[in-house]
Amino acid sequence: MSFPKSFGILLYPRFELLDAAGPLEALICLSRREGFKDMRLSVISETMDPVSVGQNSSDANINTFANAIRLMPTHTLDTAPPLDVLIVPGGIGSIDFERSDTPHHVDKYVDFVRRAYRGEDERQPLKYLISVCNGAMLLAKAGVLDGHRVTTTKDLWHLIPPLGPKSHWIARARWHHSDNIWTTSGVSAGVDGTLAWMESLVGHETVESVVNTMEWIRAEEADNDPFAKVFGAQDVPPKA
Amino acid sequence: MSFPKSFGILLYPRFELLDAAGPLEALICLSRREGFKDMRLSVISETMDPVSVGQNSSDANINTFANAIRLMPTHTLDTAPPLDVLIVPGGIGSIDFERSDTPHHVDKYVDFVRRAYRGEDERQPLKYLISVCNGAMLLAKAGVLDGHRVTTTKDLWHLIPPLGPKSHWIARARWHHSDNIWTTSGVSAGVDGTLAWMESLVGHETVESVVNTMEWIRAEEADNDPFAKVFGAQDVPPKA
Repeated sequence: MSFPKSFGILLYPRFELLDAAGPLEALICLSRREGFKDMRLSVISETMDPVSVGQNSSDANINTFANAIRLMPTHTLDTAPPLDVLIVPGGIGSIDFERSDTPHHVDKYVDFVRRAYRGEDERQPLKYLISVCNGAMLLAKAGVLDGHRVTTTKDLWHLIPPLGPKSHWIARARWHHSDNIWTTSGVSAGVDGTLAWMESLVGHETVESVVNTMEWIRAEEADNDPFAKVFGAQDVPPKA
Repeated sequence: MSFPKSFGILLYPRFELLDAAGPLEALICLSRREGFKDMRLSVISETMDPVSVGQNSSDANINTFANAIRLMPTHTLDTAPPLDVLIVPGGIGSIDFERSDTPHHVDKYVDFVRRAYRGEDERQPLKYLISVCNGAMLLAKAGVLDGHRVTTTKDLWHLIPPLGPKSHWIARARWHHSDNIWTTSGVSAGVDGTLAWMESLVGHETVESVVNTMEWIRAEEADNDPFAKVFGAQDVPPKA
């Protein structure tokens, strides 16, 4: 199989910046190399408005550091092209999805993940699905983690596994892959998970050159996860 | 001295995504904590147009992976508010500054760095200046590195020290600080440098909580730099 060409990243209000930017940086570095210059990215959100890491509010009273950071979408949930790979970052925006003051409806993003993964609407199914941090919440709610061994951020370990009771949640995992689903631990772990995914397709030498360009001090082993212990996370097996 | 409140990041076309997003993520995590919620960020560019990690061209033939990633400025070089801290990322855009096909003029950014650091135009001088990767090229051209011990990415070691002949360029350095100037090595090193800067002001415990939230596998020592050896970089002392 040739290397995937069509990448998508799902951005919702209050996504976590590094959850998105870390994996994208690894992919940018790869996309500059000969043989990978036909990689393309779609930045997908509910609307074409800038997507803020903060509140994205016009209320001047809600003015935080994160509010200033806004990325531009290239496509909406409705106009996104067929994708080979979808990256789903975490962020406060997907923790707050039950709250009425969330300006966008995360359920629409959950639906997008489900449809993209399964290939509904006459689409091809995704070749790979990658979640970072609590982006796994959207995957769990979409039902695509059922029957898989998965992981997520250790910082919200009490909150996330109950959303996916048919999955085995692995505590000590910088990342884990099961079939074509790669779930990673919190924030920075998204880079190590993406590099491991990349290595499974393009081999060690190419990934090493990406790592060197990024000057990334890499966790090469999936179980190199000091944060499971920091947050006291334990495995959560599926409910019978 | 109280913790700085007014942060700026300088974005020019073809900046390196993680050079910007890494330090910002560390600052976002800090800004959510009690005692730091009054931190504010200005995203500064030449114009208010979205700033692309790629070519930012309307030419459909120039369509790369990185082109899809565009951040929104909050201020221009002319409208930026007084700053306590300025972060200057690297990127291809500041390597290409001599090329005629660069759509924006990097010299304007160099002037901004000089004026901000020195406090010209009736401004207060910066309290801290942080460069990531080859962002140090802009600082060197601005003359603000003269007489300082500094570092930059090891991947472009042959290119950058000649731009700052009055500085001592340290090869084995994940980051280095000299007076109020913190220069870091390539891309990911910006996070470790920013965390070290933060720790110098707020102490270890607070930074450790940021590191845990980010699940960042941290280089705590400034000389923990495996990439100096990878790229064969050697110290470059100042020219007599």
